[in-house]
Amino acid sequence: MSTIKEVCQLAGVSTATVSRTLKNPNMVNVKTRERIFAAIEKAGYRPNVMASSVKTGKSNSLVVLVPNLSNPFFLRIIQGIEKAAQENGYSVLLGDTQGEPHREHEYAGMVLSNRADGLIHLDHSFPFSDNDALLAEKVPMVSVCERIVSDKQYPVIELDNYSACRALAKHLTSYGHKRFGIIAGQNESQIFRDRLGGIKSVLNEEGIDFDDSMVVGNEYSYESGSAGAKALLAGKVRPTAIFCFNDDIAIGAIHEIKKHGLKVPDDISVVGFDNIKVSAYMDPPLTTIDQPAYEMGRKAVEVVLQQIRKKPLTRNREIVQFRIIERASSGAVSS
Amino acid sequence: MSTIKEVCQLAGVSTATVSRTLKNPNMVNVKTRERIFAAIEKAGYRPNVMASSVKTGKSNSLVVLVPNLSNPFFLRIIQGIEKAAQENGYSVLLGDTQGEPHREHEYAGMVLSNRADGLIHLDHSFPFSDNDALLAEKVPMVSVCERIVSDKQYPVIELDNYSACRALAKHLTSYGHKRFGIIAGQNESQIFRDRLGGIKSVLNEEGIDFDDSMVVGNEYSYESGSAGAKALLAGKVRPTAIFCFNDDIAIGAIHEIKKHGLKVPDDISVVGFDNIKVSAYMDPPLTTIDQPAYEMGRKAVEVVLQQIRKKPLTRNREIVQFRIIERASSGAVSS
Repeated sequence: MSTIKEVCQLAGVSTATVSRTLKNPNMVNVKTRERIFAAIEKAGYRPNVMASSVKTGKSNSLVVLVPNLSNPFFLRIIQGIEKAAQENGYSVLLGDTQGEPHREHEYAGMVLSNRADGLIHLDHSFPFSDNDALLAEKVPMVSVCERIVSDKQYPVIELDNYSACRALAKHLTSYGHKRFGIIAGQNESQIFRDRLGGIKSVLNEEGIDFDDSMVVGNEYSYESGSAGAKALLAGKVRPTAIFCFNDDIAIGAIHEIKKHGLKVPDDISVVGFDNIKVSAYMDPPLTTIDQPAYEMGRKAVEVVLQQIRKKPLTRNREIVQFRIIERASSGAVSS
Repeated sequence: MSTIKEVCQLAGVSTATVSRTLKNPNMVNVKTRERIFAAIEKAGYRPNVMASSVKTGKSNSLVVLVPNLSNPFFLRIIQGIEKAAQENGYSVLLGDTQGEPHREHEYAGMVLSNRADGLIHLDHSFPFSDNDALLAEKVPMVSVCERIVSDKQYPVIELDNYSACRALAKHLTSYGHKRFGIIAGQNESQIFRDRLGGIKSVLNEEGIDFDDSMVVGNEYSYESGSAGAKALLAGKVRPTAIFCFNDDIAIGAIHEIKKHGLKVPDDISVVGFDNIKVSAYMDPPLTTIDQPAYEMGRKAVEVVLQQIRKKPLTRNREIVQFRIIERASSGAVSS
């Protein structure tokens, strides 16, 4: 096997530059890096980065855990994470946990064994265990979206779901709506409690009754939106407006409502949550809450790097701003 | 720092079981694994997997390079990869290359330096360089979707794009369409050439003229679909049917066509490609080509593992089957 010296000769650079390129390619200019990679390949040199990582104890990579890669909202967060990580010389590895705790532990194991330096959770779709609490003490980590209610909390970047749902509810009551349905994603999460609480607080202020049997749905998916709308339309009292707890649900709900020969928003207003890109292209375009997903990703990297660098966190919970996006899927109650 | 012995005592298992759990958690039963992770954390043991990887030279992980994470078609492939990798005791790391060659080389560097064992490309959105060809000789890799035309080819799992586009073209000509537009994604790729060739071969057989000025578009996105439709509608001869080279493009195109007061399919038929999930929920639901994305992901793992295990490949190109999904976005030419 050839040596690093041969690579240096071929590429016309110092051993320090070759080492730097292997350890942290982002820090080396593109042309030089390409020349070095070509030289490594030509020489047949197999650098053992694992051996050097044993010395430094740093991998310069972050693991991002995603519960559901098919939700485009998460992808925008990931783009923000990628960008911020790159600026800081870190690479990003995505792990699809499929909502399974043991897969999350596998990835946490990568941090414990120095193959990654920190963890970023996008949502946390299972109960927080004592084991997780212990992990949170050992492993630099941050959660985006979902606040874990526990003594051993780790930092979170999240939207003010309560206020966002208040804004949506006010938008709909201002149009004269009084009969509401809700199609939720998960029923056990803090997000669910915050959103339901926000809606109910407005209805309460307006003196509008709300029956909990009008809350349906258990998954963030088109199918669940479609099934949820079907259930609400089969009920005794038909809602004039439906809150959907993400845009995928809203897309499924609108599809189902149209299949019943009803019009959106003329017969039923529908609002979503997240402002994924396709929402603007729906017929009608979707009224929704915009979450600054890209910015949330950037902030997550900031917070996890503070932990990796052992700098004290200024706060454990960072609230980002929402915007209500009013499009054509919501309107006045038909008389 | 505590030792592996303490972990064994706490968890009540052998050192071999602890090692196995750290190296390959999927191979250990969930309860045992959880107990061991809890013991590791309680003892404050920091196993150095990098050190043991130096010995074995295996990381038991695969890197999947994704050019554009916001395309849901890729996510279905990734789910197939995840599943097959898990069954084989491998973990999957996703790297978002954002279509930049240097980011691909960074990830290839992970394989060269033993931090990963193989690479799976989903699409390859830049020209194949000599450097890439050299990489392909050193690094176990496979490409899904995009065939690289080069002497130093690496294996590919792909759809027969030519035949799929022939099927779409026959579907549309059978409805009496004679004036066509195409909104493409990339114009320089083999996928583009295969798809255009398939369409033209049918039009040629049917004696239908096709003018290359009717090919527009340069990105797989809603925006590009919308802009492409706008350009086609502004032309001298309005097409009665538009081929869109993915479903995102078709969604943007339908949105734009409706904005012009035209109806799909009454005025213009629109067909997509990929059969992403939201396509069935569009208004009208989209006629498209189903690619067996999940299966393609599984096959990619099979092929890259064959290379890692130094088993000869039976073939360098694996063609998967398409299905044409006829929905309401295509129909007869209005008289």
